Amino acid sequence: MNDERWLLPTGIEEVLPARAAELERLRRRLLDLYQSWGYELVIPPFIDYLESLLTGTGRDLDLQTFKLTDQLSGRLLGIRADMTPQVARIDAHHLRRDLPTRLCYLGTVLHTRSDGFAGSRSPLQIGAEVYGHDGPSSDVEVLRLLVRTLETAGIEAPYLDLGHVGVYRGLIQQAGLSRSDELRLFDALQRKAGPEVETIIAETGVSGSVGDMLLSLVELNGDDALARASSILSGADGPVRAAIDRLKQVAEELGRWLPDLPVHFDLAELRGYTYKTGVVFAAFVPGWGLEIARGGRYDEIGRVFGRARPAVGFSADLKGLIALSGEGGASVQACDGVLAPWDADPALARYIERLRAEGRRVIYALPGQKGAPRDFNCCEQLARVDGDWRLIPG
Amino acid sequence: MNDERWLLPTGIEEVLPARAAELERLRRRLLDLYQSWGYELVIPPFIDYLESLLTGTGRDLDLQTFKLTDQLSGRLLGIRADMTPQVARIDAHHLRRDLPTRLCYLGTVLHTRSDGFAGSRSPLQIGAEVYGHDGPSSDVEVLRLLVRTLETAGIEAPYLDLGHVGVYRGLIQQAGLSRSDELRLFDALQRKAGPEVETIIAETGVSGSVGDMLLSLVELNGDDALARASSILSGADGPVRAAIDRLKQVAEELGRWLPDLPVHFDLAELRGYTYKTGVVFAAFVPGWGLEIARGGRYDEIGRVFGRARPAVGFSADLKGLIALSGEGGASVQACDGVLAPWDADPALARYIERLRAEGRRVIYALPGQKGAPRDFNCCEQLARVDGDWRLIPG
Repeated sequence: MNDERWLLPTGIEEVLPARAAELERLRRRLLDLYQSWGYELVIPPFIDYLESLLTGTGRDLDLQTFKLTDQLSGRLLGIRADMTPQVARIDAHHLRRDLPTRLCYLGTVLHTRSDGFAGSRSPLQIGAEVYGHDGPSSDVEVLRLLVRTLETAGIEAPYLDLGHVGVYRGLIQQAGLSRSDELRLFDALQRKAGPEVETIIAETGVSGSVGDMLLSLVELNGDDALARASSILSGADGPVRAAIDRLKQVAEELGRWLPDLPVHFDLAELRGYTYKTGVVFAAFVPGWGLEIARGGRYDEIGRVFGRARPAVGFSADLKGLIALSGEGGASVQACDGVLAPWDADPALARYIERLRAEGRRVIYALPGQKGAPRDFNCCEQLARVDGDWRLIPG
Repeated sequence: MNDERWLLPTGIEEVLPARAAELERLRRRLLDLYQSWGYELVIPPFIDYLESLLTGTGRDLDLQTFKLTDQLSGRLLGIRADMTPQVARIDAHHLRRDLPTRLCYLGTVLHTRSDGFAGSRSPLQIGAEVYGHDGPSSDVEVLRLLVRTLETAGIEAPYLDLGHVGVYRGLIQQAGLSRSDELRLFDALQRKAGPEVETIIAETGVSGSVGDMLLSLVELNGDDALARASSILSGADGPVRAAIDRLKQVAEELGRWLPDLPVHFDLAELRGYTYKTGVVFAAFVPGWGLEIARGGRYDEIGRVFGRARPAVGFSADLKGLIALSGEGGASVQACDGVLAPWDADPALARYIERLRAEGRRVIYALPGQKGAPRDFNCCEQLARVDGDWRLIPG
């Protein structure tokens, strides 16, 4: 195997200098953005007890989570595949505030299978969440921050897909479907497989009007879906109509802040259905089929940690954002450095200290090293001129 | 288990807002420092094939490494317990430069057992390395950067322990000891167990003068150890004397740059003996028994990745540095925020945008939220005064 030691596992990346500098710049810009919006950074652990990671999150995340045995406790650990449950625990258990709490996070998550951007199994997840407020305004704030995140990353012309899990969940209740039928139907709806949805509804024996409404979800997407939903689903129970009203409020309010943002509605698009409780959304860019950011409301997530607080948030993969950003690939390093001779003269050390404090890159020439200043991207040099240290062209 | 879902595994930490902000500030200061010294950031992956992680690093690291099975390849993966082998691979395999290359890195590593700062199993490892230069100057540059790192972290009065694995390794060769005797003796020397060292030397039948020299290592520590070593080990073979000379060169050169830095020598302190090849060092602070940073020269580390380049570097745990820094514990958040009404007026949005771009924290009051401005650390508010948006005391 010796000659294959440089190989990386599939979907696992290392980041080389030019790209790492770019990632670091975007990382800081985004964390500064979140800080300026009042979102406080938290850092959840990489590994955790498995039940903390998988609590109420559904089977997909379970399959995506690497498992380990803890030698100290003998218990099963997982590597985080999503940071949201950990952040919910921080809000519920550690902060325990009564006021709305804004939190943000950034870190690597790992997946057992490649389904991320460009087949990655190690996305650099970034996200922001509001806990403790359940009105449409916190949905809107999170959506605005998501849009601002994409802008900051240089992503051009994004559009949003917006839905609400309460529509499907309410219709299921109204129809009295069993859990297994609910999930079969959910699966067919995700694929917008109209005939299959029709068959399932027929098999379950759901009565005419509710069955029609469930079937209509396949078509309830597009810019005018919300308007059509109001009339098509007018006969639905209260929770369904409440969900549609909430979605309208969110869309209207968002439109006041961001009138130029294209928003599509999709009442059958139910990302994270098993733990979401309200609006669900995803962001896309033209020409790229996969979502580039996602989120929604999950008011129940803190319950297992002792405190169910309203919660809404979004997340994205920083590596994916960079790859899609208009700024394009890794940039060539600028010839902005200064080469200094290997000399312990305190006057030189002070000069260099000053340059570095100004943000200049100053590299000492190590005795015996090969290469011209430009090989180190240095277009200036420090040299003694008439007894004083001076910057001269390199 | 439900009511224990908030528990974290032993030695695994989550970082809450005040401490996370402090970590982020120090992280940026240090990465900016390294950048200004010409060290380029790289980001190695969190998991890797086990043989890439453990190559030439010895049994300790193996025991400290969490293992996983890769579902895609069926091969064994490890969670990095040290980033140095991964950075060596980046230098050897991906960058392939002929010139000296300065790299730095920062990221979480995980250990199966608690042996880090305050029993942590998840240090935030930060480090810097020079590849491709084998003179004493690169040893000195790395030591200077280590000292500068501690200064930047607010660590007061650090001192260095300095040694060279070539002294012990050379004496072992001169004595013709077997590998198992070498390791037995090594173990006793680490504990400075004089009588045990004497017994082992007697048992191996090593002849008088070499035996005496090996035994002398137990005592060859302290400020004057290097001076004593020159005379006590004057009868040693070339490699031993070369190691002592190198150590002297490094100490002298370092003294020219940092005349006030306390440096202790210890010729029996052999951290990372199995893969180090030259100077070895550690940093300490008074009143704290454990090392706070460590490093040395490991010229062979790139060989398994196709290219052995001279290499010297150091690493530290950022969480440990913060805990020991003079700045002390988590600070109270300043009342520096601005509370804004939930109003989509574009004039207000522009005002807020400007404040945020200046680095101010502006929080929207979500409709219906409880709490006074000061509960959100806001001592100013935005309000409409005579038709214009103004900042008023909160």
